[in-house]
Parts: sequence; C-alpha cells; structure tokens
Amino acid sequence: MALRSMRKARECWNFIRALHQGPDAAPVPQKDAVKRIFSGIQPTGIPHLGNYLGAIESWDPTILRQSILDMTAALLACGINPEKSILFQQSQVSEHTQLSWILTCMVRLPRLQHLHQWKAKTAKEKHNGTVGLLTYPVLQAADILLYKSTHVPVGEDQVQHMELVQDLAQSFNKKYGEFFPVPKSILTSMKKVKSLRDPSAKMSKSDPDKLATVRITDSPEEIVQKFRKAMTDFTSEVTYEPASRGGVSNLVAIHAAVAGLPVEEVVRRSAGMDTARYKLVVADAVIEKFAPIKSEIEKLKMNKDHLEKVLQVGSARAKELAYPVCQEVKKLVGFL
Amino acid sequence: MALRSMRKARECWNFIRALHQGPDAAPVPQKDAVKRIFSGIQPTGIPHLGNYLGAIESWDPTILRQSILDMTAALLACGINPEKSILFQQSQVSEHTQLSWILTCMVRLPRLQHLHQWKAKTAKEKHNGTVGLLTYPVLQAADILLYKSTHVPVGEDQVQHMELVQDLAQSFNKKYGEFFPVPKSILTSMKKVKSLRDPSAKMSKSDPDKLATVRITDSPEEIVQKFRKAMTDFTSEVTYEPASRGGVSNLVAIHAAVAGLPVEEVVRRSAGMDTARYKLVVADAVIEKFAPIKSEIEKLKMNKDHLEKVLQVGSARAKELAYPVCQEVKKLVGFL
Repeated sequence: MALRSMRKARECWNFIRALHQGPDAAPVPQKDAVKRIFSGIQPTGIPHLGNYLGAIESWDPTILRQSILDMTAALLACGINPEKSILFQQSQVSEHTQLSWILTCMVRLPRLQHLHQWKAKTAKEKHNGTVGLLTYPVLQAADILLYKSTHVPVGEDQVQHMELVQDLAQSFNKKYGEFFPVPKSILTSMKKVKSLRDPSAKMSKSDPDKLATVRITDSPEEIVQKFRKAMTDFTSEVTYEPASRGGVSNLVAIHAAVAGLPVEEVVRRSAGMDTARYKLVVADAVIEKFAPIKSEIEKLKMNKDHLEKVLQVGSARAKELAYPVCQEVKKLVGFL
Repeated sequence: MALRSMRKARECWNFIRALHQGPDAAPVPQKDAVKRIFSGIQPTGIPHLGNYLGAIESWDPTILRQSILDMTAALLACGINPEKSILFQQSQVSEHTQLSWILTCMVRLPRLQHLHQWKAKTAKEKHNGTVGLLTYPVLQAADILLYKSTHVPVGEDQVQHMELVQDLAQSFNKKYGEFFPVPKSILTSMKKVKSLRDPSAKMSKSDPDKLATVRITDSPEEIVQKFRKAMTDFTSEVTYEPASRGGVSNLVAIHAAVAGLPVEEVVRRSAGMDTARYKLVVADAVIEKFAPIKSEIEKLKMNKDHLEKVLQVGSARAKELAYPVCQEVKKLVGFL
C-alpha cells in the first residue's frame, strides 16, 4: 500500500525518492535508449500519521524524521531493491532545490494558481496555503528533470502536474538548447483500486471513512472487518463487470493484484461462491500478502542505522547523477 | 556606484554576495558580540546592461556570466577586500536554495503578493511576473539567515523585505527554538544621493533619463555633461539646505562623499563660487574619484582567471559557514 502513495506526491519539505534505472537493470543491450523512471513519495504512507492532508503545517520534526525512516522500511519491505533502484531522501541532494529555483524563474504565478491541487487544497483549508505548497509542483519538476527522467509513474490526479513538468522541460530546451528529455507519464494501474465503501471513488489514505481503506499495517482482524463491510450489490455471484458492478469488481481486482493472477482466473476460481464468503477469501489473500511485508517492516524498523545507511548510500548515488546535470544547467543559464 | 546597487537586490537567479565579518576584521576582542553583516548585489551594476528592469526575462547566459565577473571586478576595484570580506557567488553555495525552500513553506501567498516591489514590478510589466520574482524575497531571507547575519545594509526600498526576513527568523525560532538572530537593517547613507535631474527622486540605475545618473564607467566628458545639466535653482550660492535647495544640496552631498569630507567643509571651501562653476568642481571630484577605480576595473577584467578564483575561494569560504547552519536547520525541521 505504501507504493500507492507514489501517486500522491504533494506539498512536503521532504521526499523519499526511488529512482529506477530502467524497468530492469538487465545488462543485455536494449534496442531503445535506456529508460529512466522517477517516482517520488512523501513520507506519509505510514498509518500513525493518519490523514496527512495539511500535514505540512504541523510536521513535528521528530515525527517527520521517523516517517522518513518508516517509509524507507515500507519501501524496502515492499520489494524496492536498493541495488537496482536508487532510493534516496530528497533533502540530502541539494541539487533539487537548486534546479527548482531556476525553474521557478521560468513559470508565471497564474500557471501555478490554476493547478487543481492548489485550488482544492486552499479551498479545503479555508485559508491561504503556503508558498511551498504553491511552488511544490515546480520542485517536483526539478526532481524529475534533474535525473533526465524519461518516464514517471503517476496517477490521474498528477497528470496536470506532469504537463507542467513537460512544459518546463520544453521551455528550458527552447531557451538553452535541447537538454532535458520531455518525460512521459506512465499511468499506474493502481488507479483501479477503489474505496471499499464507495466503489466510484479511489481508495485514499485520506478517506475520512476508516473502513474505506486498507493499510499495510492493519491487523488481520481489521482487514477482515473492512472487507466484511465492503460495499457490494444485491447479486451474490462473483463477476468482473466494473461498469455495472463496481463493488464486487473492485474486490476481484484487489484479489487478482495480491494473488498475482489475471482477473479471469480469479473469477473462475470463485465460481459458485457468494459475495459474503468471497469477501473473506479476498481478506485472507490480502492478509497473506501483507503478512511478510508487515513482519519485514517491523524487522527493518528495529534497525534504524541500516535504514539511515540505505538512504545515505542512495543519496550519494543520486548526487552522482544529479551533480553533473546541475552543473550543466548552471553553465547553460550562465551561472558558471 | 556599483556599491549603490546593494540596495537593489531583486529578482535574479544569480547573486554576488559580500559577507563581512564585522565592520572591521580587527583581532582586538570586542565588547559586543561579533557583528556579521550581509550584503547582496545583483550582477547588474554594469553599464552595458543598461536598464536592468525585467532583465530576468531576457538574461543571456553569456551576458549573465560576464556580468558576474564584471561585478566582481567592480567590487574589488571599489575596495572590497576579499581577505576581510567573503565575496562569493550565490549559485555556487547550494545551501541558499535549500534554506529558501524551507522558508518558502513558512510563508503564505498574500504576504508575498502584498510586497511593494512585486506589486510595482508586475504592474509595470503589464503582465504577470514569474514565480521566481514573487518568491525572491524569501531567497533573500535565506541569503541573510544562512550566515546568521546580525545586520544588513539596505536602502529604504528594502525595509519591507527586511521585515519579512525578521518575521521568518522569528517564526522559525518560535517553531523550532531560538536559532536565527533577528537581523537588523542598517539604512545606508546612499539614500541621500538624488537624481541629478530631479532632486526629489533617488539616483537610480534604471532612470530613463540618461542624464540623471552617473555611472562608474562614464567617460570624463559624460560626467562633466551630466553635472553641467544637473538641476539647481536660481540662487547661485553654494549651500547645504536639502529641504529648500534639493539640487545644489545633492551636489554638495556627492562632493562631500567622493572627497571624503564633511558637508560643512565642502560648503566652506566653495564660498564665493557660483553653482555653474561649482558643478564643474563636483564633476572633477567625481572623475578623480572614479579614475583609479575605472582603471582598476579594466585591469581586473583583463584577468578573468583571477576573478573566477576570487569567487571560487569566496564561495568555498561561504560554504564553510553555510553548510553547518544548513545541517542544523535540517536537524531542527526533521530532515536529519
């Protein structure tokens, strides 16, 4: 579940980054140019923070530090391999804010004020957001462009921010010559996971209905309860018809994802089962999937030094990539 | 004259900084705590750039790089001693944008939108300014606070920005504990230098009337012409009465400044002289004052390597001060 928050990159001072050098770090020569995929995650996927909306206002330094380490543990437990991906903490790589400042000088205020997330967030908070929140999408752009990333996995809610990234890359290239690849969005399949309480809405960490969202740190009892109360319809058969039967289709999609099976196979195996029983089957599959991740998270969290070492090594590797790009940018704009 | 632009710090990607360790680097123990004075200058004091308003939009990388070196030459020629002051280029010290990002998360949009310079600039340009221009005062705040500066020489037009710096220091201290000194403004005496064409207005690099402003790089003939055409009144006597006789009093003030004499002494020496003749005396004093500086600038500009070395050494020294402060800030906010 922590991975889902990849799509949620928003305002926050501090980021953990997973930078993937191609989909697989296969040593075999590839036909196409090497892909470089960039993902950004806020250290807010951890349950004890609960609803993270507005968290920037109230970050406690101790909680923020702990959250960074917790998120690192969660990512490692979920299978991010720091040998293949570069997992790092944004604020340990100073080139991010440097490039961000340069890009900030290339964007006009209304462009940022018209972004959905800024509008939604400032409307929701009933007060004016911080300038950090306003300019956050520019920092995101710097995060992505600094590594000359070619692809970025995003959810639909980030497509508008990706357009800003693309525009900034193109503006820069137009002014200073071809330099940045214009990165493409990869729409993640995670958009298919819906709220357990309202299959028309996305599953969201910030859903006020606690039963709507399954968290990786939920106890087995909580997971069973959440699936038991999942909204379905009055047909008892298990089918995959997302348009007409959102509730049960969402369960099938989750089941297929955690079992690593095609949707058709999951449906075939559930033949003759009613939805009430099926809910428990899905809950069990989720519990089974989460169990080793949960225990791995707990194990990793015991070893704070190891987590810090992972981030330090990752940040050093990220800096090796970021520094020459930042230097080239500085030369292009006339700083050097 | 280049020093005058200290008060003009505005939007620009790139800054040259002069950081003074106290008014004099005297090894004698001082009664008060050591003062640390920070000044920021845009590399735009150089005549060939002419009117620099809106320059950010059209910075040519080659011109920007040249301007940085030209400004360095001008500052050295004007007497900044890199042994006593740390003269450095902002973009070579990455801690500035890092602290700036953190401070950006502590300020709300209307606060920046209500600053006079943003309002004046966006009104003047008849289009919306860049977000870099909007957030520039926060970068200035980072510049100042990063060195735990205690005093900043500013002109009256920067007093509002200094209030922002003070507020940011106080907000940070309130949230994370006493850390930054709240820096005080030193109102520079340069505010007394008025336009030669309109003694009610400041002398300004960006004055559209070319005769209003004397530049360090003006030829002796140009300087004579500008003073000859300086606005005075119908009284021929030379006196210092700024309230009632702005024009001639401005000449006296300039004369006193370049001659390094008290105003009274300058007036005494001009007894019996009419203003027409006095203008030529002042022009000569200015030419005489500028001559060695001009020739020193030209000499320094011939040695690009030396100028780059000065900036490199200065930036390394600035980084030595900035790095530990930035690390402490990161610890305080929970990044480390």
